[in-house]
Amino acid sequence: MTETIAYFTEDDSVAAVTTRVGDGTDPRLARVMNALVAHLHAFIKDVELTQAEWALAIEFLTNTGQMCDGNRQEFILLSDVLGVSMLVDAINNRRPDRATENTVLGPFHVDGVPEYPMGANISKDGIGESCLFEGRVVDLSGAPIPGARVDVWSDNADGFYDVQQPDVQPPHNNRGVFVTGTDGRYWFEGIKPVSYPIPDDGPVGQMLGHLGRHPFRPAHMHFIVSAPGHETVITHTFVRGDDYLRSDAVFGVKKTLIADYAATPDGPTIWKSTFDFVMTPEATQ
Amino acid sequence: MTETIAYFTEDDSVAAVTTRVGDGTDPRLARVMNALVAHLHAFIKDVELTQAEWALAIEFLTNTGQMCDGNRQEFILLSDVLGVSMLVDAINNRRPDRATENTVLGPFHVDGVPEYPMGANISKDGIGESCLFEGRVVDLSGAPIPGARVDVWSDNADGFYDVQQPDVQPPHNNRGVFVTGTDGRYWFEGIKPVSYPIPDDGPVGQMLGHLGRHPFRPAHMHFIVSAPGHETVITHTFVRGDDYLRSDAVFGVKKTLIADYAATPDGPTIWKSTFDFVMTPEATQ
Repeated sequence: MTETIAYFTEDDSVAAVTTRVGDGTDPRLARVMNALVAHLHAFIKDVELTQAEWALAIEFLTNTGQMCDGNRQEFILLSDVLGVSMLVDAINNRRPDRATENTVLGPFHVDGVPEYPMGANISKDGIGESCLFEGRVVDLSGAPIPGARVDVWSDNADGFYDVQQPDVQPPHNNRGVFVTGTDGRYWFEGIKPVSYPIPDDGPVGQMLGHLGRHPFRPAHMHFIVSAPGHETVITHTFVRGDDYLRSDAVFGVKKTLIADYAATPDGPTIWKSTFDFVMTPEATQ
Repeated sequence: MTETIAYFTEDDSVAAVTTRVGDGTDPRLARVMNALVAHLHAFIKDVELTQAEWALAIEFLTNTGQMCDGNRQEFILLSDVLGVSMLVDAINNRRPDRATENTVLGPFHVDGVPEYPMGANISKDGIGESCLFEGRVVDLSGAPIPGARVDVWSDNADGFYDVQQPDVQPPHNNRGVFVTGTDGRYWFEGIKPVSYPIPDDGPVGQMLGHLGRHPFRPAHMHFIVSAPGHETVITHTFVRGDDYLRSDAVFGVKKTLIADYAATPDGPTIWKSTFDFVMTPEATQ
Protein backbone atom coordinates (compact mmCIF):
# COMPACT_ATOMS: atom_id res chain seq x y z
CA MET A 1 0.00 0.00 0.00
CA THR A 2 1.09 3.59 -0.58
CA GLU A 3 2.59 5.07 2.58
CA THR A 4 -0.30 6.82 4.33
CA ILE A 5 -0.11 10.34 5.72
CA ALA A 6 -0.58 9.74 9.42
CA TYR A 7 -1.90 13.09 10.59
CA PHE A 8 -4.22 15.37 8.66
CA THR A 9 -2.97 18.87 7.86
CA GLU A 10 -4.53 21.62 5.75
CA ASP A 11 -1.64 21.45 3.25
CA ASP A 12 -1.65 17.66 2.91
CA SER A 13 -5.41 17.22 3.17
CA VAL A 14 -5.79 15.46 -0.19
CA ALA A 15 -2.95 12.98 0.32
CA ALA A 16 -4.18 12.25 3.86
CA VAL A 17 -7.38 10.89 2.33
CA THR A 18 -6.21 9.41 -0.98
CA THR A 19 -3.27 7.44 0.44
CA ARG A 20 -5.75 5.62 2.70
CA VAL A 21 -7.28 3.69 -0.24
CA GLY A 22 -6.54 -0.04 0.09
CA ASP A 23 -4.38 -2.05 -2.29
CA GLY A 24 -7.15 -4.36 -3.49
CA THR A 25 -9.42 -1.49 -4.53
CA ASP A 26 -10.87 -1.50 -8.04
CA PRO A 27 -8.48 0.81 -9.96
CA ARG A 28 -11.24 2.82 -11.63
CA LEU A 29 -13.04 3.35 -8.30
CA ALA A 30 -9.78 4.50 -6.72
CA ARG A 31 -9.12 6.86 -9.63
CA VAL A 32 -12.60 8.40 -9.51
CA MET A 33 -12.74 8.74 -5.71
CA ASN A 34 -9.24 10.19 -5.43
CA ALA A 35 -9.98 12.74 -8.16
CA LEU A 36 -13.25 13.58 -6.36
CA VAL A 37 -11.38 14.22 -3.11
CA ALA A 38 -8.76 16.35 -4.88
CA HIS A 39 -11.33 18.54 -6.66
CA LEU A 40 -13.62 18.74 -3.61
CA HIS A 41 -10.78 19.87 -1.32
CA ALA A 42 -9.62 22.35 -4.01
CA PHE A 43 -13.13 23.84 -4.06
CA ILE A 44 -13.23 24.19 -0.26
CA LYS A 45 -9.78 25.82 -0.19
CA ASP A 46 -10.66 28.06 -3.15
CA VAL A 47 -13.67 29.64 -1.41
CA GLU A 48 -12.45 29.05 2.17
CA LEU A 49 -15.82 27.52 3.02
CA THR A 50 -17.07 28.62 6.46
CA GLN A 51 -18.47 26.25 9.09
CA ALA A 52 -21.91 27.82 8.61
CA GLU A 53 -21.77 27.28 4.85
CA TRP A 54 -20.68 23.67 5.41
CA ALA A 55 -23.67 23.16 7.73
CA LEU A 56 -26.00 24.64 5.09
CA ALA A 57 -24.54 22.28 2.47
CA ILE A 58 -25.15 19.26 4.73
CA GLU A 59 -28.74 20.41 5.30
CA PHE A 60 -29.29 21.03 1.57
CA LEU A 61 -27.96 17.60 0.54
CA THR A 62 -30.03 15.89 3.25
CA ASN A 63 -33.21 17.69 2.16
CA THR A 64 -32.47 16.85 -1.47
CA GLY A 65 -32.16 13.15 -0.62
CA GLN A 66 -35.32 13.19 1.45
CA MET A 67 -37.30 14.86 -1.38
CA CYS A 68 -36.72 11.77 -3.54
CA ASP A 69 -39.36 9.07 -3.94
CA GLY A 70 -40.61 6.79 -6.71
CA ASN A 71 -41.93 9.75 -8.70
CA ARG A 72 -39.41 12.47 -7.87
CA GLN A 73 -35.62 12.40 -8.27
CA GLU A 74 -34.34 15.65 -6.76
CA PHE A 75 -30.64 14.69 -7.13
CA ILE A 76 -31.07 14.25 -10.90
CA LEU A 77 -32.76 17.66 -10.91
CA LEU A 78 -29.73 19.06 -9.03
CA SER A 79 -27.38 17.42 -11.53
CA ASP A 80 -29.46 18.91 -14.36
CA VAL A 81 -29.49 22.51 -13.13
CA LEU A 82 -25.74 22.46 -12.39
CA GLY A 83 -25.00 21.39 -15.98
CA VAL A 84 -23.66 18.06 -14.73
CA SER A 85 -26.14 15.86 -16.62
CA MET A 86 -25.40 17.64 -19.90
CA LEU A 87 -21.65 17.47 -19.31
CA VAL A 88 -21.68 13.72 -18.65
CA ASP A 89 -23.86 13.26 -21.73
CA ALA A 90 -21.49 15.38 -23.87
CA ILE A 91 -18.37 13.51 -22.71
CA ASN A 92 -19.94 10.13 -23.40
CA ASN A 93 -21.48 11.00 -26.76
CA ARG A 94 -18.86 12.86 -28.80
CA ARG A 95 -19.85 12.52 -32.45
CA PRO A 96 -18.76 13.75 -35.87
CA ASP A 97 -20.01 17.24 -36.74
CA ARG A 98 -22.85 16.23 -39.02
CA ALA A 99 -24.27 13.53 -36.72
CA THR A 100 -27.32 14.35 -34.59
CA GLU A 101 -26.30 15.45 -31.09
CA ASN A 102 -27.60 13.97 -27.86
CA THR A 103 -29.24 15.87 -25.05
CA VAL A 104 -30.61 14.86 -21.62
CA LEU A 105 -33.02 11.92 -21.39
CA GLY A 106 -35.13 13.60 -18.72
CA PRO A 107 -37.18 11.77 -16.08
CA PHE A 108 -40.36 11.18 -18.11
CA HIS A 109 -39.42 8.43 -20.56
CA VAL A 110 -41.60 5.30 -20.29
CA ASP A 111 -40.96 1.76 -21.54
CA GLY A 112 -43.67 -0.39 -23.12
CA VAL A 113 -45.30 2.34 -25.17
CA PRO A 114 -47.37 1.07 -28.14
CA GLU A 115 -45.86 0.92 -31.62
CA TYR A 116 -48.04 2.71 -34.15
CA PRO A 117 -48.11 2.71 -37.95
CA MET A 118 -46.54 5.74 -39.56
CA GLY A 119 -48.93 8.70 -39.62
CA ALA A 120 -50.72 7.81 -36.36
CA ASN A 121 -51.72 10.56 -33.94
CA ILE A 122 -50.14 10.33 -30.48
CA SER A 123 -52.34 13.08 -29.00
CA LYS A 124 -54.89 10.93 -27.19
CA ASP A 125 -56.76 13.83 -25.60
CA GLY A 126 -56.87 15.89 -28.81
CA ILE A 127 -55.93 19.04 -26.88
CA GLY A 128 -53.27 21.40 -28.25
CA GLU A 129 -52.10 22.80 -31.57
CA SER A 130 -51.85 19.85 -33.95
CA CYS A 131 -48.49 19.24 -35.57
CA LEU A 132 -47.08 16.85 -38.15
CA PHE A 133 -43.59 15.58 -37.22
CA GLU A 134 -41.67 14.13 -40.11
CA GLY A 135 -38.19 13.51 -41.45
CA ARG A 136 -35.67 10.81 -42.21
CA VAL A 137 -33.30 8.58 -40.26
CA VAL A 138 -30.03 8.38 -42.20
CA ASP A 139 -26.40 7.38 -41.71
CA LEU A 140 -23.39 9.66 -42.04
CA SER A 141 -23.39 9.17 -45.83
CA GLY A 142 -27.04 10.24 -46.03
CA ALA A 143 -28.29 6.73 -46.80
CA PRO A 144 -31.69 5.87 -45.23
CA ILE A 145 -31.71 3.51 -42.24
CA PRO A 146 -34.62 1.06 -42.44
CA GLY A 147 -35.95 -0.56 -39.28
CA ALA A 148 -34.94 2.38 -37.07
CA ARG A 149 -37.02 2.63 -33.91
CA VAL A 150 -38.26 6.18 -33.25
CA ASP A 151 -39.52 6.51 -29.66
CA VAL A 152 -41.16 9.91 -29.04
CA TRP A 153 -42.83 11.73 -26.14
CA SER A 154 -43.79 15.26 -25.20
CA ASP A 155 -45.77 17.21 -22.63
CA ASN A 156 -49.45 18.07 -23.19
CA ALA A 157 -50.89 21.51 -23.93
CA ASP A 158 -50.67 22.40 -20.21
CA GLY A 159 -46.97 21.47 -19.95
CA PHE A 160 -47.40 18.13 -18.13
CA TYR A 161 -46.36 14.63 -19.19
CA ASP A 162 -49.01 11.91 -18.92
CA VAL A 163 -47.11 10.23 -16.05
CA GLN A 164 -47.33 13.45 -14.04
CA GLN A 165 -51.11 13.42 -14.36
CA PRO A 166 -52.25 9.78 -14.37
CA ASP A 167 -55.75 10.81 -13.24
CA VAL A 168 -56.13 13.58 -15.83
CA GLN A 169 -54.53 12.40 -19.08
CA PRO A 170 -55.34 9.24 -21.06
CA PRO A 171 -52.66 6.52 -20.95
CA HIS A 172 -49.72 7.15 -23.29
CA ASN A 173 -50.98 10.62 -24.15
CA ASN A 174 -48.41 12.22 -26.46
CA ARG A 175 -46.20 9.11 -26.64
CA GLY A 176 -45.53 6.54 -29.32
CA VAL A 177 -43.04 4.28 -31.08
CA PHE A 178 -42.61 4.19 -34.86
CA VAL A 179 -40.35 2.03 -37.02
CA THR A 180 -38.94 3.27 -40.33
CA GLY A 181 -39.36 1.42 -43.61
CA THR A 182 -36.85 1.06 -46.43
CA ASP A 183 -36.92 4.82 -47.15
CA GLY A 184 -35.84 5.62 -43.57
CA ARG A 185 -38.76 8.07 -43.28
CA TYR A 186 -40.86 8.72 -40.17
CA TRP A 187 -44.04 10.79 -39.79
CA PHE A 188 -46.64 11.08 -37.08
CA GLU A 189 -49.14 13.56 -35.70
CA GLY A 190 -49.02 15.08 -32.25
CA ILE A 191 -49.17 18.56 -30.75
CA LYS A 192 -46.68 21.40 -30.81
CA PRO A 193 -45.05 21.00 -27.36
CA VAL A 194 -45.08 23.89 -24.85
CA SER A 195 -42.48 25.21 -22.42
CA TYR A 196 -42.88 24.19 -18.75
CA PRO A 197 -41.12 24.59 -15.37
CA ILE A 198 -39.16 21.71 -13.87
CA PRO A 199 -40.56 20.75 -10.43
CA ASP A 200 -39.47 23.74 -8.30
CA ASP A 201 -41.22 23.15 -4.97
CA GLY A 202 -38.14 21.42 -3.42
CA PRO A 203 -34.58 22.32 -2.39
CA VAL A 204 -33.40 22.62 -6.02
CA GLY A 205 -36.19 25.07 -6.90
CA GLN A 206 -35.31 27.08 -3.80
CA MET A 207 -31.66 27.15 -4.87
CA LEU A 208 -32.61 28.36 -8.35
CA GLY A 209 -34.63 31.14 -6.68
CA HIS A 210 -31.64 32.26 -4.59
CA LEU A 211 -29.52 32.29 -7.77
CA GLY A 212 -32.03 34.42 -9.68
CA ARG A 213 -32.68 31.61 -12.17
CA HIS A 214 -36.09 30.60 -13.55
CA PRO A 215 -37.12 26.90 -13.67
CA PHE A 216 -38.40 26.81 -17.27
CA ARG A 217 -37.47 24.50 -20.11
CA PRO A 218 -38.13 25.57 -23.69
CA ALA A 219 -40.75 23.50 -25.57
CA HIS A 220 -39.35 20.26 -27.01
CA MET A 221 -40.28 16.87 -28.45
CA HIS A 222 -38.26 13.94 -27.05
CA PHE A 223 -36.75 11.33 -29.38
CA ILE A 224 -34.84 8.12 -28.83
CA VAL A 225 -33.73 6.86 -32.23
CA SER A 226 -32.13 3.41 -32.28
CA ALA A 227 -31.08 1.03 -35.02
CA PRO A 228 -28.88 -2.08 -35.09
CA GLY A 229 -25.23 -1.20 -35.70
CA HIS A 230 -25.72 2.48 -34.82
CA GLU A 231 -25.22 4.56 -31.70
CA THR A 232 -28.55 5.26 -30.05
CA VAL A 233 -29.49 8.94 -30.24
CA ILE A 234 -31.22 10.30 -27.13
CA THR A 235 -32.28 13.83 -27.91
CA HIS A 236 -34.99 16.50 -28.24
CA THR A 237 -36.01 18.81 -31.02
CA PHE A 238 -36.68 22.31 -29.72
CA VAL A 239 -39.26 24.75 -31.05
CA ARG A 240 -37.50 27.60 -32.84
CA GLY A 241 -38.54 30.96 -31.37
CA ASP A 242 -39.30 29.64 -27.87
CA ASP A 243 -38.67 32.27 -25.14
CA TYR A 244 -36.48 29.92 -23.09
CA LEU A 245 -34.17 28.56 -25.81
CA ARG A 246 -31.27 30.67 -24.49
CA SER A 247 -31.95 29.95 -20.80
CA ASP A 248 -33.08 26.31 -20.53
CA ALA A 249 -33.02 25.55 -16.77
CA VAL A 250 -31.20 22.25 -17.48
CA PHE A 251 -28.92 23.50 -20.33
CA GLY A 252 -30.37 20.91 -22.76
CA VAL A 253 -30.49 23.14 -25.85
CA LYS A 254 -27.98 22.65 -28.63
CA LYS A 255 -28.09 24.90 -31.65
CA THR A 256 -28.35 21.94 -34.04
CA LEU A 257 -31.44 20.64 -32.22
CA ILE A 258 -33.62 23.69 -32.80
CA ALA A 259 -36.29 22.75 -35.35
CA ASP A 260 -38.53 24.88 -37.56
CA TYR A 261 -42.24 24.64 -36.99
CA ALA A 262 -43.95 25.78 -40.18
CA ALA A 263 -47.58 26.90 -40.22
CA THR A 264 -49.55 24.79 -42.69
CA PRO A 265 -52.72 26.72 -43.58
CA ASP A 266 -53.83 24.03 -46.01
CA GLY A 267 -52.41 20.99 -44.22
CA PRO A 268 -54.08 18.33 -42.12
CA THR A 269 -52.38 19.88 -39.05
CA ILE A 270 -51.75 23.45 -37.87
CA TRP A 271 -47.96 22.98 -37.79
CA LYS A 272 -45.36 20.84 -39.50
CA SER A 273 -41.91 20.15 -38.06
CA THR A 274 -39.27 18.47 -40.21
CA PHE A 275 -36.10 17.02 -38.67
CA ASP A 276 -33.65 14.43 -39.97
CA PHE A 277 -31.71 12.17 -37.60
CA VAL A 278 -28.14 11.37 -38.66
CA MET A 279 -26.76 8.29 -36.89
CA THR A 280 -23.16 7.20 -36.38
CA PRO A 281 -21.92 3.60 -36.55
CA GLU A 282 -21.72 1.92 -33.15
CA ALA A 283 -18.00 1.25 -33.57
CA THR A 284 -17.11 4.95 -33.36
CA GLN A 285 -18.11 5.13 -29.66
CA MET B 1 -26.28 40.65 -16.13
CA THR B 2 -23.22 38.97 -17.59
CA GLU B 3 -23.88 37.86 -21.18
CA THR B 4 -25.07 34.27 -20.89
CA ILE B 5 -23.78 31.42 -23.01
CA ALA B 6 -26.85 30.44 -25.00
CA TYR B 7 -26.05 26.84 -25.86
CA PHE B 8 -24.21 24.35 -23.69
CA THR B 9 -20.99 22.84 -25.08
CA GLU B 10 -18.44 20.57 -23.45
CA ASP B 11 -15.75 23.26 -23.72
CA ASP B 12 -17.89 26.08 -22.33
CA SER B 13 -19.77 23.97 -19.79
CA VAL B 14 -18.74 26.04 -16.75
CA ALA B 15 -19.55 29.42 -18.28
CA ALA B 16 -22.87 28.07 -19.57
CA VAL B 17 -23.91 27.54 -15.95
CA THR B 18 -22.14 30.35 -14.10
CA THR B 19 -23.22 33.16 -16.45
CA ARG B 20 -26.82 32.23 -15.71
CA VAL B 21 -26.62 33.57 -12.12
CA GLY B 22 -28.88 36.60 -11.69
CA ASP B 23 -27.71 40.15 -10.96
CA GLY B 24 -29.38 40.43 -7.57
CA THR B 25 -27.75 37.27 -6.21
CA ASP B 26 -25.91 37.46 -2.89
CA PRO B 27 -22.25 37.89 -3.94
CA ARG B 28 -20.93 35.23 -1.57
CA LEU B 29 -23.53 32.70 -2.72
CA ALA B 30 -22.66 33.44 -6.36
CA ARG B 31 -18.95 33.06 -5.58
CA VAL B 32 -19.39 29.73 -3.77
CA MET B 33 -21.81 28.23 -6.30
CA ASN B 34 -19.79 29.29 -9.33
CA ALA B 35 -16.62 27.83 -7.79
CA LEU B 36 -18.55 24.64 -7.01
CA VAL B 37 -19.67 24.34 -10.64
CA ALA B 38 -16.13 24.99 -11.91
CA HIS B 39 -14.53 22.36 -9.64
CA LEU B 40 -17.35 19.83 -10.17
CA HIS B 41 -17.13 20.10 -13.96
CA ALA B 42 -13.32 19.88 -13.75
CA PHE B 43 -13.68 16.63 -11.77
CA ILE B 44 -16.07 15.14 -14.33
CA LYS B 45 -13.79 16.11 -17.23
CA ASP B 46 -10.73 14.86 -15.35
CA VAL B 47 -12.05 11.31 -14.95
CA GLU B 48 -14.42 11.38 -17.98
CA LEU B 49 -17.22 10.13 -15.77
CA THR B 50 -19.38 7.51 -17.53
CA GLN B 51 -23.18 7.53 -17.61
CA ALA B 52 -23.19 4.39 -15.43
CA GLU B 53 -20.90 6.04 -12.85
CA TRP B 54 -23.12 9.13 -12.86
CA ALA B 55 -26.17 6.91 -12.22
CA LEU B 56 -24.34 5.21 -9.33
CA ALA B 57 -23.48 8.61 -7.85
CA ILE B 58 -27.13 9.72 -8.02
CA GLU B 59 -28.18 6.50 -6.29
CA PHE B 60 -25.46 6.85 -3.63
CA LEU B 61 -26.38 10.45 -2.80
CA THR B 62 -30.08 9.56 -2.68
CA ASN B 63 -29.46 6.62 -0.34
CA THR B 64 -27.22 8.80 1.83
CA GLY B 65 -29.98 11.39 2.19
CA GLN B 66 -32.58 8.75 2.96
CA MET B 67 -30.37 7.19 5.66
CA CYS B 68 -30.57 10.42 7.67
CA ASP B 69 -33.00 10.84 10.56
CA GLY B 70 -33.03 12.54 13.95
CA ASN B 71 -30.33 10.19 15.27
CA ARG B 72 -28.24 9.59 12.17
CA GLN B 73 -26.55 12.12 9.86
CA GLU B 74 -25.07 10.12 6.99
CA PHE B 75 -24.00 13.22 5.00
CA ILE B 76 -21.87 14.42 7.95
CA LEU B 77 -20.38 10.92 8.05
CA LEU B 78 -19.62 11.22 4.31
CA SER B 79 -18.04 14.63 4.87
CA ASP B 80 -15.99 13.13 7.71
CA VAL B 81 -14.59 10.16 5.79
CA LEU B 82 -13.68 12.31 2.77
CA GLY B 83 -11.62 14.64 4.99
CA VAL B 84 -14.03 17.51 4.27
CA SER B 85 -15.07 18.10 7.90
CA MET B 86 -11.42 18.27 9.02
CA LEU B 87 -10.50 20.58 6.13
CA VAL B 88 -13.32 23.04 6.88
CA ASP B 89 -12.32 22.94 10.55
CA ALA B 90 -8.67 23.55 9.69
CA ILE B 91 -9.42 26.50 7.38
CA ASN B 92 -11.66 28.16 9.96
CA ASN B 93 -9.40 27.59 12.97
CA ARG B 94 -5.86 28.53 11.99
CA ARG B 95 -3.95 29.25 15.19
CA PRO B 96 -0.44 30.09 16.38
CA ASP B 97 1.86 27.07 16.73
CA ARG B 98 1.73 26.70 20.49
CA ALA B 99 -2.07 27.05 20.75
CA THR B 100 -4.19 23.90 21.14
CA GLU B 101 -5.50 22.69 17.78
CA ASN B 102 -9.12 21.96 16.96
CA THR B 103 -10.49 18.73 15.63
CA VAL B 104 -13.97 17.56 14.58
CA LEU B 105 -16.88 18.09 16.98
CA GLY B 106 -18.47 14.76 16.10
CA PRO B 107 -22.18 13.95 16.33
CA PHE B 108 -22.38 13.01 20.01
CA HIS B 109 -22.06 16.34 21.87
CA VAL B 110 -25.02 17.11 24.13
CA ASP B 111 -26.16 20.42 25.62
CA GLY B 112 -27.47 20.77 29.17
CA VAL B 113 -24.98 18.40 30.80
CA PRO B 114 -24.56 18.91 34.61
CA GLU B 115 -21.70 21.05 35.92
CA TYR B 116 -19.69 19.16 38.54
CA PRO B 117 -17.13 20.27 41.14
CA MET B 118 -13.53 19.55 40.19
CA GLY B 119 -12.57 15.96 40.91
CA ALA B 120 -16.03 14.49 40.25
CA ASN B 121 -16.33 11.15 38.47
CA ILE B 122 -18.23 11.26 35.15
CA SER B 123 -18.38 7.47 34.80
CA LYS B 124 -21.94 6.86 36.02
CA ASP B 125 -21.93 3.13 35.31
CA GLY B 126 -18.51 2.55 36.89
CA ILE B 127 -17.49 0.31 33.98
CA GLY B 128 -14.08 0.69 32.35
CA GLU B 129 -10.49 1.43 33.32
CA SER B 130 -10.61 4.41 35.66
CA CYS B 131 -8.59 7.44 34.65
CA LEU B 132 -7.78 10.84 36.15
CA PHE B 133 -7.87 13.64 33.56
CA GLU B 134 -6.06 16.76 34.62
CA GLY B 135 -4.22 19.80 33.34
CA ARG B 136 -4.42 23.55 32.98
CA VAL B 137 -6.22 26.05 30.78
CA VAL B 138 -3.78 28.83 29.92
CA ASP B 139 -3.34 31.66 27.45
CA LEU B 140 -0.53 32.02 24.90
CA SER B 141 1.75 33.53 27.58
CA GLY B 142 1.14 30.53 29.87
CA ALA B 143 -1.00 32.51 32.33
CA PRO B 144 -3.90 30.52 33.83
CA ILE B 145 -7.42 31.28 32.57
CA PRO B 146 -9.91 31.28 35.45
CA GLY B 147 -13.61 30.65 34.73
CA ALA B 148 -12.89 28.49 31.69
CA ARG B 149 -15.68 26.05 30.90
CA VAL B 150 -14.39 22.52 30.23
CA ASP B 151 -17.11 20.40 28.59
CA VAL B 152 -16.04 16.74 28.22
CA TRP B 153 -17.52 13.52 26.85
CA SER B 154 -16.32 10.09 25.78
CA ASP B 155 -17.61 6.67 24.83
CA ASN B 156 -18.11 3.93 27.43
CA ALA B 157 -16.02 0.77 27.83
CA ASP B 158 -17.92 -0.85 24.92
CA GLY B 159 -17.27 2.04 22.52
CA PHE B 160 -20.73 3.62 22.66
CA TYR B 161 -21.80 7.11 23.74
CA ASP B 162 -24.69 7.34 26.20
CA VAL B 163 -26.96 8.86 23.54
CA GLN B 164 -26.42 5.80 21.33
CA GLN B 165 -27.67 3.53 24.13
CA PRO B 166 -30.37 5.44 26.03
CA ASP B 167 -31.83 2.17 27.36
CA VAL B 168 -28.49 0.74 28.46
CA GLN B 169 -26.40 3.57 29.90
CA PRO B 170 -27.34 5.91 32.75
CA PRO B 171 -28.08 9.52 31.70
CA HIS B 172 -24.96 11.63 31.06
CA ASN B 173 -22.69 8.62 31.41
CA ASN B 174 -19.13 9.77 30.71
CA ARG B 175 -20.11 13.44 30.28
CA GLY B 176 -19.62 16.50 32.43
CA VAL B 177 -18.88 20.22 32.60
CA PHE B 178 -16.19 21.72 34.86
CA VAL B 179 -15.21 25.35 35.43
CA THR B 180 -11.64 26.35 36.29
CA GLY B 181 -10.73 28.39 39.36
CA THR B 182 -8.07 31.09 39.63
CA ASP B 183 -5.26 28.57 38.99
CA GLY B 184 -6.80 27.56 35.60
CA ARG B 185 -6.56 23.90 36.64
CA TYR B 186 -9.08 21.16 35.82
CA TRP B 187 -9.27 17.58 37.05
CA PHE B 188 -11.94 14.91 36.94
CA GLU B 189 -12.28 11.16 36.96
CA GLY B 190 -13.64 9.09 34.10
CA ILE B 191 -12.56 6.05 32.11
CA LYS B 192 -9.80 5.58 29.58
CA PRO B 193 -11.75 5.83 26.29
CA VAL B 194 -11.67 3.00 23.74
CA SER B 195 -11.55 2.93 19.94
CA TYR B 196 -14.81 2.29 18.10
CA PRO B 197 -16.22 2.08 14.56
CA ILE B 198 -18.28 4.92 13.11
CA PRO B 199 -21.75 3.69 12.07
CA ASP B 200 -20.95 1.58 9.01
CA ASP B 201 -24.26 -0.10 8.16
CA GLY B 202 -25.20 2.57 5.60
CA PRO B 203 -23.97 3.82 2.19
CA VAL B 204 -20.87 5.46 3.71
CA GLY B 205 -19.80 2.24 5.44
CA GLN B 206 -20.34 0.39 2.18
CA MET B 207 -18.16 2.94 0.36
CA LEU B 208 -15.39 2.53 2.96
CA GLY B 209 -15.57 -1.22 2.37
CA HIS B 210 -15.15 -0.80 -1.41
CA LEU B 211 -12.16 1.48 -0.76
CA GLY B 212 -10.48 -1.03 1.55
CA ARG B 213 -10.78 1.35 4.50
CA HIS B 214 -11.77 0.35 8.04
CA PRO B 215 -14.39 2.39 9.96
CA PHE B 216 -12.49 2.77 13.27
CA ARG B 217 -11.65 5.87 15.23
CA PRO B 218 -8.78 5.77 17.72
CA ALA B 219 -9.78 6.19 21.39
CA HIS B 220 -10.28 9.83 22.40
CA MET B 221 -11.76 12.12 25.05
CA HIS B 222 -13.76 15.06 23.66
CA PHE B 223 -13.23 18.58 25.00
CA ILE B 224 -14.87 21.92 24.35
CA VAL B 225 -12.91 24.56 26.25
CA SER B 226 -14.41 28.04 26.26
CA ALA B 227 -13.63 31.24 28.13
CA PRO B 228 -14.68 34.87 27.64
CA GLY B 229 -12.31 36.72 25.32
CA HIS B 230 -10.82 33.52 23.91
CA GLU B 231 -11.46 31.39 20.85
CA THR B 232 -13.41 28.29 21.79
CA VAL B 233 -11.35 25.12 21.41
CA ILE B 234 -13.28 22.12 20.07
CA THR B 235 -10.96 19.15 20.21
CA HIS B 236 -10.12 15.64 21.44
CA THR B 237 -7.18 14.19 23.27
CA PHE B 238 -6.13 10.85 21.78
CA VAL B 239 -4.70 7.88 23.66
CA ARG B 240 -1.03 7.49 22.77
CA GLY B 241 -0.35 3.98 21.45
CA ASP B 242 -3.84 3.38 20.04
CA ASP B 243 -3.84 1.08 16.99
CA TYR B 244 -5.86 3.50 14.88
CA LEU B 245 -3.95 6.75 15.53
CA ARG B 246 -2.44 6.66 12.02
CA SER B 247 -5.65 5.62 10.26
CA ASP B 248 -8.52 7.45 11.97
CA ALA B 249 -11.55 6.88 9.69
CA VAL B 250 -12.42 10.60 9.94
CA PHE B 251 -8.84 12.00 9.90
CA GLY B 252 -9.33 13.69 13.28
CA VAL B 253 -5.89 12.96 14.74
CA LYS B 254 -3.34 15.75 15.03
CA LYS B 255 0.08 14.98 16.44
CA THR B 256 -0.22 17.67 19.13
CA LEU B 257 -3.46 16.12 20.41
CA ILE B 258 -1.99 12.72 21.34
CA ALA B 259 -1.87 12.51 25.13
CA ASP B 260 0.09 10.25 27.46
CA TYR B 261 -1.87 7.90 29.67
CA ALA B 262 0.36 7.01 32.61
CA ALA B 263 -0.32 3.95 34.76
CA THR B 264 -0.72 4.97 38.40
CA PRO B 265 -0.14 1.86 40.53
CA ASP B 266 -0.60 3.81 43.75
CA GLY B 267 -3.16 6.35 42.54
CA PRO B 268 -6.88 6.58 43.10
CA THR B 269 -7.34 5.61 39.41
CA ILE B 270 -5.65 3.09 37.10
CA TRP B 271 -4.56 5.77 34.63
CA LYS B 272 -3.73 9.46 34.65
CA SER B 273 -3.78 11.67 31.56
CA THR B 274 -2.37 15.18 31.72
CA PHE B 275 -3.11 17.74 29.00
CA ASP B 276 -2.90 21.54 29.00
CA PHE B 277 -5.17 23.65 26.80
CA VAL B 278 -3.60 26.78 25.34
CA MET B 279 -6.18 29.30 24.19
CA THR B 280 -5.84 32.19 21.72
CA PRO B 281 -7.48 35.59 22.13
CA GLU B 282 -10.78 35.92 20.28
CA ALA B 283 -9.50 38.84 18.21
CA THR B 284 -7.01 36.66 16.31
CA GLN B 285 -9.79 34.80 14.50
